[in-house]
Amino acid sequence: MSEKDFSVTLSPIAKIRNAFPTKFGLPRQSGLAESLVSEIVFEPEYRIPEALRDIEQYSHLWLIWGFSEVFGEKWSPTVRPPRLGGNKRVGVFATRSPYRPNPIGLSCVKLLGIKKTPDGTVLLVSGADIMDQSPIYDIKPYLPYVDSHPEALGGFAHEKKDYRLELDFPIELLDIVPKDLQGALKEVLEGDPRPAYHTDDARIYGLEYASFEVKFKVSENILHVVSVNERKK
Amino acid sequence: MSEKDFSVTLSPIAKIRNAFPTKFGLPRQSGLAESLVSEIVFEPEYRIPEALRDIEQYSHLWLIWGFSEVFGEKWSPTVRPPRLGGNKRVGVFATRSPYRPNPIGLSCVKLLGIKKTPDGTVLLVSGADIMDQSPIYDIKPYLPYVDSHPEALGGFAHEKKDYRLELDFPIELLDIVPKDLQGALKEVLEGDPRPAYHTDDARIYGLEYASFEVKFKVSENILHVVSVNERKK
Repeated sequence: MSEKDFSVTLSPIAKIRNAFPTKFGLPRQSGLAESLVSEIVFEPEYRIPEALRDIEQYSHLWLIWGFSEVFGEKWSPTVRPPRLGGNKRVGVFATRSPYRPNPIGLSCVKLLGIKKTPDGTVLLVSGADIMDQSPIYDIKPYLPYVDSHPEALGGFAHEKKDYRLELDFPIELLDIVPKDLQGALKEVLEGDPRPAYHTDDARIYGLEYASFEVKFKVSENILHVVSVNERKK
Repeated sequence: MSEKDFSVTLSPIAKIRNAFPTKFGLPRQSGLAESLVSEIVFEPEYRIPEALRDIEQYSHLWLIWGFSEVFGEKWSPTVRPPRLGGNKRVGVFATRSPYRPNPIGLSCVKLLGIKKTPDGTVLLVSGADIMDQSPIYDIKPYLPYVDSHPEALGGFAHEKKDYRLELDFPIELLDIVPKDLQGALKEVLEGDPRPAYHTDDARIYGLEYASFEVKFKVSENILHVVSVNERKK
């Protein structure tokens, strides 16, 4: 079919920095944990303030990024989305699964601000569903007149949108976490970080968040935090 | 900064087929010419009907694709968007310009249907702002609960959204074009395919559309089609 080779190699222009060193607990889609602030730190060769000129005119940005934790793994024509209980198989192109032919993610984030740092000009964004240190390949403005389609039909993925757990987070445990990281942690826990097919009340889960390990269990739609400890490096 | 190499090579999973063999006249953003139907034809190794299972549950899809006409060209930290008259320079990450570090495009299209063809299962979509034969690297469902932000601030790009030319398309010329291709052609012409900084009333422009060359001129907000001819191959 092809006469030309239309392969393309993407080099990271930036990395994301946030409180999620592992995938477990990461919001499953962008915007689901709005308090989670991430920093976009440009790679040295892309620390060109000019390239960001007028970006503050936009409230939202698109990030095109790499599912780097699955680089080198095989893709699968069908996947089992956690939101469907992990049982039903759907086509990979009908999902946002990382196990796709080209392991590239797409996330809409809110632009909170821009700051100058020793690492160059950094973008502060909220709502990213992207693991700490993941590579960013492109940043584009969100254009509501072409990108916003509230009337779009969302298949199965929107069905559990409003599902939230009640949170039992003892204050003495919460206070171990710095104030500015508490909001996003609570949102993430309320969103139920467990795989949807786990329903074992006795099971203790461990969530890595910033420099902490947060242990919790869930019963009858209440998430009980049982410990918060500094992680060993 | 990086210990790991997070570069990634994308292989085309599909190509797009439509009536736009060149960039001139191509809608400047997705959704702007809703009548323009494109086909997404999978590359032989991705002709796996399973990979599309349940995709019809979505009304809209994201396409991640390559600006293949600029592959190998240099990117520029600032660009002059045509919508701003081609004079003002803004940062490349505040635009959807193809001259970016990683020349990857993002477009939202409407899923019209799926059909089985000798070239495998083909997706029919409308609203793509993508040149004929461009490589597609990924297809994702549009999830309105995470992707739709009608409240987003659109910077300068939405200012000219409703701008339309009046169209003077003599019926004997229009009828040279097959009926099913007329609607999209009219939309494209009404959208003013000229670079925004061209205002020469006498100038004749040539638009390649399907197998035709459409010549036109513009004066006082009226676009006059002056000829429609079969292109030489």
